[in-house]
Amino acid sequence: MATAAEIDAMRRAIGLATRGLGHTSPNPVVGCVVLDARGEPAGEGWHERAGGPHAEVNALRAAGERARGGTAVVTLEPCDHTGRTGPCSQALIAAGVARVVYAVADPTPAATGGAGTLLAAGLDVEGGVLAAEAAAGNEAWLTAVARHRPHVVWKYAATLDGRSAAADGTSRWITSPESRADVQRLRAEADAVLVGSGTARTDDPQLSARTGDPATNQPLRVVLDSGGTAVHPGARVLDGSAPTLIAVARDTDTTHLDGTPATVLRLPRAAGGPGLDLGALLGALYERGVRSLLLEGGPRLAGAFLAAGAVDRIIGYLAPALLGDGPAALSGAGITTIGQALRLEVTDVVRLGPDLRITAVPAPPAVPTHSEEN
Amino acid sequence: MATAAEIDAMRRAIGLATRGLGHTSPNPVVGCVVLDARGEPAGEGWHERAGGPHAEVNALRAAGERARGGTAVVTLEPCDHTGRTGPCSQALIAAGVARVVYAVADPTPAATGGAGTLLAAGLDVEGGVLAAEAAAGNEAWLTAVARHRPHVVWKYAATLDGRSAAADGTSRWITSPESRADVQRLRAEADAVLVGSGTARTDDPQLSARTGDPATNQPLRVVLDSGGTAVHPGARVLDGSAPTLIAVARDTDTTHLDGTPATVLRLPRAAGGPGLDLGALLGALYERGVRSLLLEGGPRLAGAFLAAGAVDRIIGYLAPALLGDGPAALSGAGITTIGQALRLEVTDVVRLGPDLRITAVPAPPAVPTHSEEN
Repeated sequence: MATAAEIDAMRRAIGLATRGLGHTSPNPVVGCVVLDARGEPAGEGWHERAGGPHAEVNALRAAGERARGGTAVVTLEPCDHTGRTGPCSQALIAAGVARVVYAVADPTPAATGGAGTLLAAGLDVEGGVLAAEAAAGNEAWLTAVARHRPHVVWKYAATLDGRSAAADGTSRWITSPESRADVQRLRAEADAVLVGSGTARTDDPQLSARTGDPATNQPLRVVLDSGGTAVHPGARVLDGSAPTLIAVARDTDTTHLDGTPATVLRLPRAAGGPGLDLGALLGALYERGVRSLLLEGGPRLAGAFLAAGAVDRIIGYLAPALLGDGPAALSGAGITTIGQALRLEVTDVVRLGPDLRITAVPAPPAVPTHSEEN
Repeated sequence: MATAAEIDAMRRAIGLATRGLGHTSPNPVVGCVVLDARGEPAGEGWHERAGGPHAEVNALRAAGERARGGTAVVTLEPCDHTGRTGPCSQALIAAGVARVVYAVADPTPAATGGAGTLLAAGLDVEGGVLAAEAAAGNEAWLTAVARHRPHVVWKYAATLDGRSAAADGTSRWITSPESRADVQRLRAEADAVLVGSGTARTDDPQLSARTGDPATNQPLRVVLDSGGTAVHPGARVLDGSAPTLIAVARDTDTTHLDGTPATVLRLPRAAGGPGLDLGALLGALYERGVRSLLLEGGPRLAGAFLAAGAVDRIIGYLAPALLGDGPAALSGAGITTIGQALRLEVTDVVRLGPDLRITAVPAPPAVPTHSEEN
């Protein structure tokens, strides 16, 4: 049984872990608090960036000699392998820690086994403490490693009647400055940001995270441009402020991208539809270390992702406005009747200035309780 | 200055007033608390139904002799005219009340003047106590008497992407049982419920308030059916469970409604558009005593009301679901570019089971701060 001090320390460690969001992929975010032999906090740390020291190592450094005989409280099972840094299990043993409390077991074949190594070395080990909270903080990474594709967040902005632009295509600004700033935060926490060719052509978006903080993570910018016609030299997405990937069909001519900073990714076309094979896209992004992907638009791309079951979280910014006409936020999800509606569960509702931000996750399909007659 | 006991009594009176919602039109809802000479609550009452005693009379009866030398605390300025009941000003004077505290002045030419009569009789009178709260409770009536048309609430149900039905027209059930029960409450608090011919034809709605309580107010059911083709004998809206008004164009043949319980209302057609003149419709409903109107559908009717500036409150039931196709909740509001968007202010967000209920009111037009370039 974890002590009250250990549970407090775990809560603190979960908070520390979030500081790494956007900087640690392909690694998870991890936080660690070291308690001394009397149970007092002696040091803390988090995994700050991929290739840098793990959370345990940072916390052990901060604790120094006070770690000896103490307890390491860590949000993820300490790793047992040598990647760009040494195994944390060995670091904990070497520091003389007597007990390790962790929240979530490491699900990756390469890194798992840390708990066993610690037990074999005679340490007291307890897992599962505040596991749900810690897993929520690491949701993107845990989803990604389980599915071998990035965790996908679909973000949209719309009026209360679901329009993302007016009839003439104008759309700025549907949502408030507060909502737009929140989207910049979402970008900064994502490993990659994705738009389709329609959005690239119409909006010429820069897709960078503009938070005002130069230390902000800049996500990989990805444009799906199967025909190679949407992104031209001079497009803002090619401004060099962050890496850019242009996904095209295998036979697409991309000579217009020669000499630009863009990397070209060639993918098979989707079976039976326009566009590219989304599974192949997500697999290729995962191979490149992308664990979290922010899907920004437009409506048909979102429809294709939803139809493929490839959206893990939906964040809608709803502006208190009505249009009555204009493009919808979502189209082409392949749903024809109400029984096929993609049912969600709302997990969070926040007011951002005048707007509402609604966060939802896909719900298991409900059993129909009524006939379809109308 | 009102005393703390008087302010407490006013808060109580505002709560009592709401018990009359749906039953008092064309009168307002009113609540009253009588304090005795020592400031202790001696009696309370509310205006229960049109034609019945006013709130003050009910409260004076409950207080009996304890009203003498006491204070009447009432949400609306006591009336000064003889309608179906006598003037409340005289009843208060006759009961020997020494002081009257009210929240909102009576804006109607017929009933106003009560405060002056009370002052002339030597009573101490104070108005404006908790006026904003009391006015909010009487919003529909105050709006209606100011505009000489009913207060209009547009209610819609949609998915998060703004669809009110799937591509094949199926729509039950987009929203949850909790949301549907809440709509029954809205109906019970309204004097009239309105649908257009499309909804009448497609859904054959009964439009009654099904709350499970036999004392529930049944609103007047109104169908806009300019061509006289949507409502046939046997339609559920003609089931006799509540009065029904079928609004048609002046030259429409309505022989098919002969022998049904429906009242036919003939109106001019809208200038320059299909359908009927909404101003004439609202004027006719006001003349019939309708002070609050619940606008239930469909999307084009809502668009016409919004374009006419004839919606005072919007209540959206948003189901956590996505469709990506199917009719929108709103269409035909005459908006072509983002600068013309009907801007709202969200006044309330409530979770109803899995759904969100968003209440909003029209906001003053904002000054554009950015160009329309995209």
